[in-house]
Amino acid sequence: MERLLSMMRQDAELTEKTLYELVPATDADYGVLLEAERYSLLAGGKRIRPFLVLSFCRLYGGEDKAALPFACAVEMIHTYSLIHDDLPCMDNDDMRRGRPTNHKVYGEANALLAGDGLLTRAFGTAAGNPHVSAELARDAVCALSEAAGDCGMVGGQVIDLLGEEQALTREQLTRLHSLKTGALIRVSALLGCLAAGFSADSAEAQAAVAYADRIGLAFQIIDDVLDVTGDEAQLGKPCGSDADNQKTTFLTFYSIDEARAYAARLTSEAISLISHIDGSELLTDLAVYLLDRDH
Amino acid sequence: MERLLSMMRQDAELTEKTLYELVPATDADYGVLLEAERYSLLAGGKRIRPFLVLSFCRLYGGEDKAALPFACAVEMIHTYSLIHDDLPCMDNDDMRRGRPTNHKVYGEANALLAGDGLLTRAFGTAAGNPHVSAELARDAVCALSEAAGDCGMVGGQVIDLLGEEQALTREQLTRLHSLKTGALIRVSALLGCLAAGFSADSAEAQAAVAYADRIGLAFQIIDDVLDVTGDEAQLGKPCGSDADNQKTTFLTFYSIDEARAYAARLTSEAISLISHIDGSELLTDLAVYLLDRDH
Repeated sequence: MERLLSMMRQDAELTEKTLYELVPATDADYGVLLEAERYSLLAGGKRIRPFLVLSFCRLYGGEDKAALPFACAVEMIHTYSLIHDDLPCMDNDDMRRGRPTNHKVYGEANALLAGDGLLTRAFGTAAGNPHVSAELARDAVCALSEAAGDCGMVGGQVIDLLGEEQALTREQLTRLHSLKTGALIRVSALLGCLAAGFSADSAEAQAAVAYADRIGLAFQIIDDVLDVTGDEAQLGKPCGSDADNQKTTFLTFYSIDEARAYAARLTSEAISLISHIDGSELLTDLAVYLLDRDH
Repeated sequence: MERLLSMMRQDAELTEKTLYELVPATDADYGVLLEAERYSLLAGGKRIRPFLVLSFCRLYGGEDKAALPFACAVEMIHTYSLIHDDLPCMDNDDMRRGRPTNHKVYGEANALLAGDGLLTRAFGTAAGNPHVSAELARDAVCALSEAAGDCGMVGGQVIDLLGEEQALTREQLTRLHSLKTGALIRVSALLGCLAAGFSADSAEAQAAVAYADRIGLAFQIIDDVLDVTGDEAQLGKPCGSDADNQKTTFLTFYSIDEARAYAARLTSEAISLISHIDGSELLTDLAVYLLDRDH
């Protein structure tokens, strides 16, 4: 587990350094836009998505330089989704990761545009990956667009909004998370495979996506548990907010123990999907780490 | 000119039919999202950007089927920008093209997400163009991302916001329009060339982009003129709003006659850039049409 944490730190630094280069500071008239993008992009976080891209690329024999543009593209999309999600017309959150949200610092209009800019840049970054073939870059853009779009993350957001107005069924809740957070986690694993030269329909990519599917759902279940049992200081956000907002969560359908057991079962499934592959220890550790985390 | 208007109508129908297929209705939990996207996507308009994609593709011997995915991608991006631009935190507009704006019908959150969804889908649509090589699809995504992003349309929006707080210089105003509307018009012409198999650095593409640059700026100058001289019913929006908002426009620096003369000069330049090419009559007519329009 020590090795995992050390690798995650290293990869987070590598990703942040590259993001920093990809979103340059400028004194142009629109400079505040790039400043706003950097503010949220470089706000820390676990960088799990870039780590998945890099790890699956390495697992299948690819090079970091081929994975990095994809890793940054995914992180740009993740970051844009947080900025838009925090806006007053969405979740109306003032704090994120212990800091004021983007629109609290730069105003709503700039936050909206910073999100738009990051989403737009993500696709150029993926398409412009100079270390993969044009075919794989094209496949990466198509996969990213699908994962982030109407039938992926954005669609999940709409179901999330629906859940503010009405109670969701268990099926709707599972679909919500499969789309809202799961899709981007799955595509991260897939992009790692593409960076290593494997096509989306290869057995390698399918195992990676199935693994990511399981850890993504487990991650969300644990998130719901931590909202009740966690420590506010460690989480960097208020606890109990789901209950306060009468939100449907996994704890609507399961006790805390049942929810933990469900997440543990998904984690085992994830591990069994990749444990036969040489060098998969880090990804095994990652699944366990995400299950056992306290924030 | 009759032939131009007839072709523009035909191409608008072709584009709308394809957009309709690309954004399918669904009874999924996120169905309202696609409904909101269709609402703005199919709200009419001149469809100048798709027309440019199709026209340059034809001019250089390409096939419509190769141009259509690019044409739709550009129109999706244009439409998303209108949805976000109309939001309360931006221009706060209630009406667009004579109909309530997206957020007036679907609420702010859905409008925000419909814009995000369209932007995301645009890149998948361009990348997934099955009638061009992977190299050209990749180039198209990179060009679209640049044109729509921080150093393009989104950057222009930020300068536009700046203009609400302070008077802009003529240089800033020109840059505003070159980015906010010009970039997407230029990339439309470029995508038409790519669809015909010409690379971005070909003489063909460079002439197309230079032409689009001139008609894009002329278009904006005429827009400013029409805001003062136009007919509200024909424009589908209130007149005089620029002056009411104390916005810097070309009429801050030029009289109406001078502005018209400037636009006419740009139109002549645009025409001279392509008039030597066989079959360029429609694009010549387009430049004149945009100059002489009354809405």
